[in-house]
Amino acid sequence: MRCDVLAIGTELLLGQIVDTNSAWIGEQLAEAGIDSFEHRQVGDNLSRMVHALRDLLEHGDSVIVCGGLGPTPDDVTREAIAEVMGVELERRDELIEWVSALFTTRGREMPANNLRQCDIPAGAEPIPNSVGTAPGIRAPIGEKVVYAVPGVPYEMQLMWREQVLPDLLRRAGQQSAIVSRSLKTWGTSESGLAEMIAHRVDAQSNPTIAFLARGIEGLVVRITAKAPTHEDAFALIEPEERAVRAILGDLVFGVDDETMESVVLDLLRKRGLTLGLAESVTGGLVASRLVATPGTSDVLKGSIVAYMTDVKRSLLGVDAEHIVSEAAARQLAGAARELLRADVGLGVTGVAGPEEQDGQPAGTVFFGLAVGDEPVEVVGTRLPGQREMVRQFATITLLNLLRLKLLSMA
Amino acid sequence: MRCDVLAIGTELLLGQIVDTNSAWIGEQLAEAGIDSFEHRQVGDNLSRMVHALRDLLEHGDSVIVCGGLGPTPDDVTREAIAEVMGVELERRDELIEWVSALFTTRGREMPANNLRQCDIPAGAEPIPNSVGTAPGIRAPIGEKVVYAVPGVPYEMQLMWREQVLPDLLRRAGQQSAIVSRSLKTWGTSESGLAEMIAHRVDAQSNPTIAFLARGIEGLVVRITAKAPTHEDAFALIEPEERAVRAILGDLVFGVDDETMESVVLDLLRKRGLTLGLAESVTGGLVASRLVATPGTSDVLKGSIVAYMTDVKRSLLGVDAEHIVSEAAARQLAGAARELLRADVGLGVTGVAGPEEQDGQPAGTVFFGLAVGDEPVEVVGTRLPGQREMVRQFATITLLNLLRLKLLSMA
Repeated sequence: MRCDVLAIGTELLLGQIVDTNSAWIGEQLAEAGIDSFEHRQVGDNLSRMVHALRDLLEHGDSVIVCGGLGPTPDDVTREAIAEVMGVELERRDELIEWVSALFTTRGREMPANNLRQCDIPAGAEPIPNSVGTAPGIRAPIGEKVVYAVPGVPYEMQLMWREQVLPDLLRRAGQQSAIVSRSLKTWGTSESGLAEMIAHRVDAQSNPTIAFLARGIEGLVVRITAKAPTHEDAFALIEPEERAVRAILGDLVFGVDDETMESVVLDLLRKRGLTLGLAESVTGGLVASRLVATPGTSDVLKGSIVAYMTDVKRSLLGVDAEHIVSEAAARQLAGAARELLRADVGLGVTGVAGPEEQDGQPAGTVFFGLAVGDEPVEVVGTRLPGQREMVRQFATITLLNLLRLKLLSMA
Repeated sequence: MRCDVLAIGTELLLGQIVDTNSAWIGEQLAEAGIDSFEHRQVGDNLSRMVHALRDLLEHGDSVIVCGGLGPTPDDVTREAIAEVMGVELERRDELIEWVSALFTTRGREMPANNLRQCDIPAGAEPIPNSVGTAPGIRAPIGEKVVYAVPGVPYEMQLMWREQVLPDLLRRAGQQSAIVSRSLKTWGTSESGLAEMIAHRVDAQSNPTIAFLARGIEGLVVRITAKAPTHEDAFALIEPEERAVRAILGDLVFGVDDETMESVVLDLLRKRGLTLGLAESVTGGLVASRLVATPGTSDVLKGSIVAYMTDVKRSLLGVDAEHIVSEAAARQLAGAARELLRADVGLGVTGVAGPEEQDGQPAGTVFFGLAVGDEPVEVVGTRLPGQREMVRQFATITLLNLLRLKLLSMA
């Protein structure tokens, strides 16, 4: 089974929007075990859409057409599919009723333009859109099939999950559910991770195991299973997840949609602990990333961003000779705990670069952890990358150190 | 002249990487007045690359092939172009010399694999790569032409600007330079901006004027001129820029690569002023965005992120009854100036949402500006959008208020 993607929109060609939909669909297809050999973008142009559709259908079994389903005259996906099918468009009464009801709930009259969204090529079927006014289209063409979905990512993704993917899997003869579990890790390299679980990767065909590098979000080990039902698929994943976790231990910081921030905030909340920060090299990034996560307000006291040295000395009372040092990180963490009246104080100081500082090369970072009444612990490291990457890596590394510390106290 | 884009890489189809190169090239082509009607992505597969190249060349005049120029066996862009040309690959001595010299400067031996990067289809020409090991290729095919460029965005963009675009313009018969000037604005809506300069947009054909919405980076008015030389193009832009600036006044905060952060830091530095922040709703985002900008260290003293109310009261001495209020913003700004011993103190408090707070709806934000010995000024506003967007908009709005204040003092 081969399924290609055709994204529609002149704005894509002009570079006003980057086509993220095709990549998203590509990832979904790969996970479903369906080949995708070509993605294309063409403008809102009927003849070029028709040419692209014909060419893709000649080489593949199915095409996802993304976009061009809006109400304005430049939206011609409906017309293009009808032309490829060699049929006329039919205005569907049930769609008129559905779209006008949608406008009524929003307290508005349906503009005449929106009637165009009720046109479906004869012999094709509308696909319900549960969040927008544009119905999708499922159009059989001989033994092959074209699915038209909206270009708005949220609408497209919902229609994909609820309607298109299940239909595609049925056609592919896969009467099956596909379920994934992502184990998010921090603290080792991709090759290190691969080496640790190579024997499991080699041994498996269902579930499969894949690695995804997510940059500052860490490395993800994704376990994917296919089975007749969701429950069966979960049942296949569960023992594999246990086995992989037994090998990776606390390198795994979270699963699926969890982030390092959400995991650390949860650990603190469960223990009833508040957090205070003293940031130098990260410049407020640790606080900012935590605040971007829901549920910060009952955990985070605040952060003192001491960027200039005199602020570290006067406000935070740092008297260590070198500002980038273990001693300074220790004092920063202690000051954060004390001044912000927090249960846990974290301090971070380092050199973002490009120049060295205090005789320390760019990437050098020291982290201080002041937890409860315990003495402050300090860890130093050398992080790779340019200025902004050093700040991002320092932020995640600091939160990961706190995570490991909290786990060790459990 | 029509120029399409073919991006190479199985990782694009699998959704592991989003193809931003094609959008970038599309934007460049649009700006140069060259039509681009189709973008495609295919995997590292010789026969599909050859099919795509032939199809694109049949309909257009030129194709940019992006990626597949690396040293490993799955990089087959060279082979695909040779097959479309109907010629063999030739190993070029001057490229061997050049690539091995590159490895020598890096203190390494050239791996045997890299010899593949010295292969060029007979009749084609290498394009120098000033920052990587992969030379590009310029391949004439009848009256048409294929340019192969690296997939690494930085290498691609440099090669594009230095080599490909000028060559393409020569072929298009445009013995001309295209120059743009972006005026970045903050403080009005896209329709408001369009209305203000509608008469200039309508009156112009060279230079042209376009609007680009950049979200939290503001709205951009881009003036683009074509002329035989760069100097001539600049001469066309200059009077138009003056006219647009006369209309927009200090809505324009910067040009081209300038950001709100870099502009505000420059204004402070020129006046010899230091900056201290007290952040509530932004949670460290103001500091973090400033620190991400080069040249912060002689201006930014630091930021006190007072997220919980008790920190505002104990550390910053805020005694205003309501934490989201004009009075609290005034006290935050004053405390930032005093505690961080800064010339300028900024304070920001508000409701990021989704819930209301202090009887104020989500999006309500108060800004305090404490400049020198002057009394603190306070501005209140209601910002649109969800939680994270409120924080981002609050950050830029605060910096813009400081910019206007500093300009008024000049």
